[in-house]
Amino acid sequence: MKEKSVDAEALSGQFKAISVAEFFEKNRHLLGFENPTKALITIVKELVDNSLDACEEARILPNIKISLKEIGSDRFKISVDDNGPGIVSEKLTSAFGKLLYGTKFHRLRMSRGQQGIGVSGSVLYSQLTTGKPVKITSSTGKDIHIFDLMIDVAKNEPHVISHHTEKNPKNWKGIKTELETEGRYVEKGASVLEYLKQTAIANPFANISYEGPNGKEEFKRAVNELPVQPKEIKPHPYGVELGLLRRMLQSTKTRNIVGFLTEEFSRVGRGTAEQICKLSKIDSKKKPGELTHEEMERLHKSMQMVKLVAPPTNCLSPLGENLLIEGLKKETGVEFAVAVVRPPSVYRGMPFLIEVALGYGGQLPTDKTAQLFRFANKVPLLYHQGDCVTTEAVIDTDFRRYGFSQSSGQIPNGPLVILIHFASVWVPYTSEGKQAIADYPEIMKEIKLALQDAGRNLASYVRHKNKLRDRQLRRELFEKYIPELAESLEKLTDKERKKIIDELEKIAKKGEIVGKEESKTESGNIG
Amino acid sequence: MKEKSVDAEALSGQFKAISVAEFFEKNRHLLGFENPTKALITIVKELVDNSLDACEEARILPNIKISLKEIGSDRFKISVDDNGPGIVSEKLTSAFGKLLYGTKFHRLRMSRGQQGIGVSGSVLYSQLTTGKPVKITSSTGKDIHIFDLMIDVAKNEPHVISHHTEKNPKNWKGIKTELETEGRYVEKGASVLEYLKQTAIANPFANISYEGPNGKEEFKRAVNELPVQPKEIKPHPYGVELGLLRRMLQSTKTRNIVGFLTEEFSRVGRGTAEQICKLSKIDSKKKPGELTHEEMERLHKSMQMVKLVAPPTNCLSPLGENLLIEGLKKETGVEFAVAVVRPPSVYRGMPFLIEVALGYGGQLPTDKTAQLFRFANKVPLLYHQGDCVTTEAVIDTDFRRYGFSQSSGQIPNGPLVILIHFASVWVPYTSEGKQAIADYPEIMKEIKLALQDAGRNLASYVRHKNKLRDRQLRRELFEKYIPELAESLEKLTDKERKKIIDELEKIAKKGEIVGKEESKTESGNIG
Repeated sequence: MKEKSVDAEALSGQFKAISVAEFFEKNRHLLGFENPTKALITIVKELVDNSLDACEEARILPNIKISLKEIGSDRFKISVDDNGPGIVSEKLTSAFGKLLYGTKFHRLRMSRGQQGIGVSGSVLYSQLTTGKPVKITSSTGKDIHIFDLMIDVAKNEPHVISHHTEKNPKNWKGIKTELETEGRYVEKGASVLEYLKQTAIANPFANISYEGPNGKEEFKRAVNELPVQPKEIKPHPYGVELGLLRRMLQSTKTRNIVGFLTEEFSRVGRGTAEQICKLSKIDSKKKPGELTHEEMERLHKSMQMVKLVAPPTNCLSPLGENLLIEGLKKETGVEFAVAVVRPPSVYRGMPFLIEVALGYGGQLPTDKTAQLFRFANKVPLLYHQGDCVTTEAVIDTDFRRYGFSQSSGQIPNGPLVILIHFASVWVPYTSEGKQAIADYPEIMKEIKLALQDAGRNLASYVRHKNKLRDRQLRRELFEKYIPELAESLEKLTDKERKKIIDELEKIAKKGEIVGKEESKTESGNIG
Repeated sequence: MKEKSVDAEALSGQFKAISVAEFFEKNRHLLGFENPTKALITIVKELVDNSLDACEEARILPNIKISLKEIGSDRFKISVDDNGPGIVSEKLTSAFGKLLYGTKFHRLRMSRGQQGIGVSGSVLYSQLTTGKPVKITSSTGKDIHIFDLMIDVAKNEPHVISHHTEKNPKNWKGIKTELETEGRYVEKGASVLEYLKQTAIANPFANISYEGPNGKEEFKRAVNELPVQPKEIKPHPYGVELGLLRRMLQSTKTRNIVGFLTEEFSRVGRGTAEQICKLSKIDSKKKPGELTHEEMERLHKSMQMVKLVAPPTNCLSPLGENLLIEGLKKETGVEFAVAVVRPPSVYRGMPFLIEVALGYGGQLPTDKTAQLFRFANKVPLLYHQGDCVTTEAVIDTDFRRYGFSQSSGQIPNGPLVILIHFASVWVPYTSEGKQAIADYPEIMKEIKLALQDAGRNLASYVRHKNKLRDRQLRRELFEKYIPELAESLEKLTDKERKKIIDELEKIAKKGEIVGKEESKTESGNIG
């Protein structure tokens, strides 16, 4: 062949490691930066979610200020300001300037952030589109540190442009982040405002004040108490894969298998541990690091075979029925709402819990598709609805049973709002953009059960309202026939005619006419 | 508050870097490992795509052997074997044992792989679910190297379990990968077989032989020539963001701005470079590293303002009309097919090209939704159809114009296959699982233009066929009325009746009856 071909030697020079920052810079759409509108929402979301996490963890009622200013064509300045605990300066630069760095990845506990790429991803996008550093002002109560920071993309390391400190006479604590970015501002549909509105529904203990291009908006604190703090837990034996078990066996500090099982896992007592050893035919005193591959496989199988209590659920922090109902009513103005909190369940060893609220009537249009509010660990999900297990569960649930119309494969129609909250120590997002939850069968099942439960609770109210509305409609329809009938009754004497019309009106008022077809038949009989 | 709160100091100890391998192990669904069925497809796909890339690059007609054996409950052994150039042993271990490592990320040229996480991700999943190393046998023509390999997840580095070499008297070149994994095998819908079948459509120059749990399948080479080899190109000024420009300015070896613009970008000649300098009011002799931020911003703006030729397209390797039509006919058995290859276009400075083929009739059902075959750089996309710009483009195209029925927001119905091929130096996948293409407006527009073009070419054939079918239907319908009519004509004399029936049958055969309603009217008139 004439073309220049490449052999293995030539190719070998081209092999190169790719830094995580390079990867996400080129694949920025994975982090939620596929268009300028979404970019603004993503940045605000990542910063606010981080502030809420920090405040909740430090047991501080959050006060968060967001400002978003248009400073040029498609160019915005965003600042987010919190009263959280701050971050010590040695860690601060990496927290903002290094992707895959954080406090939440390696622990099992419910929180909004989990990957350590949200905030640093925002910094990455800001510098990519504007070439400018971000400014971070933070204090843990001592001096105030002010950084101008960029990311060294090829190395995935923070690059400090400037750093100085100031006195902090009032012992201010918190973080203020200021950055410039390319973006586009909208207030309809998926938007910064919609994100904040839904955040307020799920976080009524937070004070959120927003100053946007079109004025100020306050989401005031509705509850003066923080939710119970979730606890960190150990992995549950049911969800541990063989490869992970292997690593745990090699790195554990425990001295024998029984110790390993009871100390590294949740819900394994000494009795169960010994039962597992017996089932897998492994000496319970054997050192964890000395197991052969065959023994590991047997151990892994036995761990799935013994009966275990579900993982502890104090690692979760649900919203609860009252909050769900109040939040939904407050933000959507529905006339009636029901809520269901399911007992915790497990997918791949991870505890999770589903909460559902259904809101009905009020201002909602009767002829549109129901609205769906999706939350994961109290964070609203605004995009990729079609890709989310919550949506699939709604489609799969037969809402016709609860008085709504619904085409196959579709979300139901009617004056209905559906709120679904997925709470877990690990949210299986379909992408790093964190906008949709992956379809695990256990999750699907729990959401459907919650929807069915809530649907049943709502159904009697809906049926009652439907009945009232149907009666009204039929009455109007029937009344329309009366004059026509009257005309064709002209042959009769006045007295007879009047009697018949009175009779008809009485029937109409009673609302006893059962349907369009029957009302026709009845009037026919009378005529 | 009573609960234990965490201050910034306590929190600081929890900050930790996350390795890319840890990240993708926990987020394995991002790489296409969300369920055991998809896991098998993903592993075969990543290995085969890599083999095809290597062969094409080394200008070798690919012979690829795939074997998939069930070796236990939900446990499979997969082996993929190619005749490519092999990988030199110093790079081989990282190529298989380190995520974000490869030859394709840093260059602009069309290839199947791009991130350097496909094959290593498969190794990661294999060891996670089975705890076992993968076995890699490779030679570049010299000795044969045999590795047993795992990934050190916490470090994201290859961990060589064993390595030995063998003599290679026949100078074999290639790579054989053998691994065990958890999985589930299906042959309906999205499956290993379907992936291979579609791969054969888009890669007719490859010989692919498959031995699965249910027997052998051969996809024989249909073309004995490799496609033209795509060339590597430099970035086009229109697609370069400010942050990237900044980095390029700082790292370039060129001595002045004119040199920087002409040497680091495609389609910028000396004249254009000077025009850009003039527009941005920057001295063309200034050193690239010495630009102020304001100058960079002006330079960036000016680069978008000058008129430039579209990027070179020899970096792309389209299939071409003939291949599209032949491939489609061979694998789907359609009776008629048309194809359209659009001229190259640009999104974010990346050249891309859309090819579309439409196949009609044959074995296809007339009452079902059209089938959609999606390809990106010759790789079939089997999942996340709803999330893909190709699907949106199909939905947005009015196929009723071309003789098909189509509900709003839906794929058209009828005996139709739609094949869309997106070819680019960089495919903007919606996730690392590489199953759907992100919705860039430029891409959307090009796909729609291609579909419209192909639709028009198909329409006359479809209309002709629809007419024939309608005639047939109406004739059958009309003929059904004849006996009934005959009965009600009994009063007439035999002669008259016979004459009328003959007349009616003549009309029916002509197929001139226009519709159900009219045929009734006509028979009415005659009676």
